[in-house]
Amino acid sequence: MSAIETISEQRCFGGVQGFYRHASTACGGPMRFALYLPPQAAQGPCPLLYFLAGLTCTEETATLKAGMQRLAAELGMALVMPDTSPRDTGFDGATGDWEFGEGAGFYLDATQAPWSTRFRMESYVVDELPALLAEHFPVDVTRSGLCGHSMGGHGALTLALKHPQCYRSVSAFAPIMAPTQVPWGRKAFPRYLGDDASTWAGHDACELVRQHTFPGTILIDQGEADPFLHTQLRPDLFEQACAAAGQSLQLRRHAGYDHSYWFIASFIEDHVRHHADALGLA
Amino acid sequence: MSAIETISEQRCFGGVQGFYRHASTACGGPMRFALYLPPQAAQGPCPLLYFLAGLTCTEETATLKAGMQRLAAELGMALVMPDTSPRDTGFDGATGDWEFGEGAGFYLDATQAPWSTRFRMESYVVDELPALLAEHFPVDVTRSGLCGHSMGGHGALTLALKHPQCYRSVSAFAPIMAPTQVPWGRKAFPRYLGDDASTWAGHDACELVRQHTFPGTILIDQGEADPFLHTQLRPDLFEQACAAAGQSLQLRRHAGYDHSYWFIASFIEDHVRHHADALGLA
Repeated sequence: MSAIETISEQRCFGGVQGFYRHASTACGGPMRFALYLPPQAAQGPCPLLYFLAGLTCTEETATLKAGMQRLAAELGMALVMPDTSPRDTGFDGATGDWEFGEGAGFYLDATQAPWSTRFRMESYVVDELPALLAEHFPVDVTRSGLCGHSMGGHGALTLALKHPQCYRSVSAFAPIMAPTQVPWGRKAFPRYLGDDASTWAGHDACELVRQHTFPGTILIDQGEADPFLHTQLRPDLFEQACAAAGQSLQLRRHAGYDHSYWFIASFIEDHVRHHADALGLA
Repeated sequence: MSAIETISEQRCFGGVQGFYRHASTACGGPMRFALYLPPQAAQGPCPLLYFLAGLTCTEETATLKAGMQRLAAELGMALVMPDTSPRDTGFDGATGDWEFGEGAGFYLDATQAPWSTRFRMESYVVDELPALLAEHFPVDVTRSGLCGHSMGGHGALTLALKHPQCYRSVSAFAPIMAPTQVPWGRKAFPRYLGDDASTWAGHDACELVRQHTFPGTILIDQGEADPFLHTQLRPDLFEQACAAAGQSLQLRRHAGYDHSYWFIASFIEDHVRHHADALGLA
């Protein structure tokens, strides 16, 4: 049985907000995550909603700022927030640039040295973490939804499109929707994946949806005052790709809202209920 | 007209979450505060709920962690979170001790040098800040409620009991209820107020309630797993004082909850609705 170290556990909305650390096989070192167990977990395993955070964030960010626990407690849903990358890797260039390296794992398995030994967030989130959670906590990982923000929204879209058997629902806030065509992706992908751009397509939501649609409506909220909207996020491209592929998409644009967690908190209830419906909790 | 500098303003639940800075007369230097204006503020002045934070906290703490904006937007209530003390005072001993000085203003007007020139949080919260808010924002400061946590709960109770004409309602989470009898107060009060313990009584909720009751029920939530419960907070003493004075008190004890904002977030809705009732917003 894999060992988990409890960093803290605190009562919250009748359940428990916990922070944990464990030795990750996929990421070759310690990884941290946050897990909220609602009061219903005392009666048996609860469905699970992942929230993948964005650049510069950690497992604490959405846990503290999104305001999801109240809804999770009402609905009987567990919440898991992984860290956004391995930490303390010691790799040259792994720190000091908020767009690449630690805090910027892009939810993919790097193939290039030295990143390929530690930066394997796709395997971590899709395979290792659910197995670990199922082993240690009252969660039903066969009923999982996936949500994320910005780089984590990219993670949610790409992982759900690549592994639809793992997730019953997917949603995102201001995701990076066409990373192979925007500066964030064009900076990170060559270093993680190499210069052959054909390997990048497997981590681009626009490319993936052309290959396989997700069996369910993808819910995306986007603020129109988001400073990254036109340069880094490109909902227009994903909207076109979904239309061409026949993917059901609910893309909502919100006047005045920016890229922050104030935006996320304002609309998180719709996302949690979107996932609750798919997870049989409505 | 006093000048206010806008640090940031962001759309949140249809309203605006702002952070501001201004030159404070009461505190002899710059002070920061957070203000949430709900969408209803576009139609006219909204009633106001103050939240006073505790030791080590700033104007950001409750703003980020308490989850009040959703409710404020629903009810049409403005929220103001002042910083917990002046900053960058340069006074010997003002930093480096989380229980005293910067971040630990105790919501009183210090009488002892050098603190008396800057640490005047009672005058700031009761007089200067409402006047400033009324001048610059669509808030109706004649309809105000007062809430706080820990040291800020002490602030809420003592300021409401001393200035009942200023507040229509008061509530607190895990407040310091008998500061003259516990280590936090017995450390801070002599330095701010001098060694004459008779001057401390004017800043002790148990002493104040014996002199004048508050015209309304005081709502207090207290976690039973709070590590400060028996040493620093002493709800038992306040409960006795209220009973002796005929003060209406609703003191709720919650098994398993600690001193954190996870506890506050879990019960904040009851507090916001308690204030909304008194402010005519229910």
